Amino acid sequence: MNTLNAVTTAESPSVRQMQGFIREKLAVDVKLLTGDTIQGAIFWQDQDCISVKTAGADMLVWKHAIAFIQPRS
Amino acid sequence: MNTLNAVTTAESPSVRQMQGFIREKLAVDVKLLTGDTIQGAIFWQDQDCISVKTAGADMLVWKHAIAFIQPRS
Amino acid sequence: MNTLNAVTTAESPSVRQMQGFIREKLAVDVKLLTGDTIQGAIFWQDQDCISVKTAGADMLVWKHAIAFIQPRS
Amino acid sequence: MNTLNAVTTAESPSVRQMQGFIREKLAVDVKLLTGDTIQGAIFWQDQDCISVKTAGADMLVWKHAIAFIQPRS
Amino acid sequence: MNTLNAVTTAESPSVRQMQGFIREKLAVDVKLLTGDTIQGAIFWQDQDCISVKTAGADMLVWKHAIAFIQPRS
Amino acid sequence: MNTLNAVTTAESPSVRQMQGFIREKLAVDVKLLTGDTIQGAIFWQDQDCISVKTAGADMLVWKHAIAFIQPRS
Repeated sequence: MNTLNAVTTAESPSVRQMQGFIREKLAVDVKLLTGDTIQGAIFWQDQDCISVKTAGADMLVWKHAIAFIQPRS
Repeated sequence: MNTLNAVTTAESPSVRQMQGFIREKLAVDVKLLTGDTIQGAIFWQDQDCISVKTAGADMLVWKHAIAFIQPRS
Repeated sequence: MNTLNAVTTAESPSVRQMQGFIREKLAVDVKLLTGDTIQGAIFWQDQDCISVKTAGADMLVWKHAIAFIQPRS
Repeated sequence: MNTLNAVTTAESPSVRQMQGFIREKLAVDVKLLTGDTIQGAIFWQDQDCISVKTAGADMLVWKHAIAFIQPRS
Repeated sequence: MNTLNAVTTAESPSVRQMQGFIREKLAVDVKLLTGDTIQGAIFWQDQDCISVKTAGADMLVWKHAIAFIQPRS
Repeated sequence: MNTLNAVTTAESPSVRQMQGFIREKLAVDVKLLTGDTIQGAIFWQDQDCISVKTAGADMLVWKHAIAFIQPRS
């Protein structure tokens, strides 16, 4: 499988996985480079940010600050 | 919803959300990669920076240093 | 050997090595810039992310957060 | 106000604000991603760096390492 | 000497120095942004990564995570 | 003074200042994002790296890891 293109497109596996998280309103942990873990559901994404619905106010999270996203077990 | 384009434009959801924060002079927490949290209202944004009105002098904050922005509850 | 091109392509050694990890379902340690080490097998990669199958739920890991990947000894 | 363009130009608000700091030789705090705060006046800027006049020798500071700049109160 | 071009090429001094490390199988310390120091010999490089032969398994190290490389004294 | 162009060129002030450091073999402190400070003289620079002559072996330092450079007082 060769899924590596020079430019990220709407068809990239990571974009599709994020779209799945959004569609299913999945409860996820978003681990940041600051060490913080945000718990919530991803509401939308664009090139630079994701919006995370948390117990408090929605958070606008910069993708450059994300280490990983993992569905909550 | 497919909101991921190769280039960030003025129509990107994250740009529009920031424009909403600016228009409404919303009190926000800006969490930085340094671990600092800045409390204030966003005054303007451009490609590289945001300007945050705080209790002290206005701060010119580099977007590359932002982890997330959250309206204050 | 001159393997340095201006643009990463599917033929780059690092991409091929990652494809080998994926094909062989190799147990690896993924060390992140947060200091976390993820243990698992890489499931797929694209330009921005890798998917890591762990003992818990699969993790979507951003490449910009990876320090190194090492097969588990 | 739509100040977000795909490319930073000499007319960007952040560039103009930096030019103001330079012109007025304003005393500023430059907070870095290392956690260090540099106190001084900005002497010039270009695409990659700013030059900061401090009590000691001038410092060549990389923009990628800046979290924020704030006029000293 | 003016060695600064807009794009890194196979003729850049840093690329040539890395190629020398590889050719001579030089024992080096690779200091990472995580604070870790990897001891080994560089096996190959491409645009994104270097491969480091260590006492354990080979490590695939992302260049964006490297602070410096120094031959071991 | 408008020294901000979209692309760094050999004529940028920061490049010229670095060239001055190199030409004068100036003793400098190079502060890294890891918190380390390297003491030495800059030997050459290219787009990605600088070479620093230290008391030990020469160090190949990635520019993305530099916070600031300051002549030693």
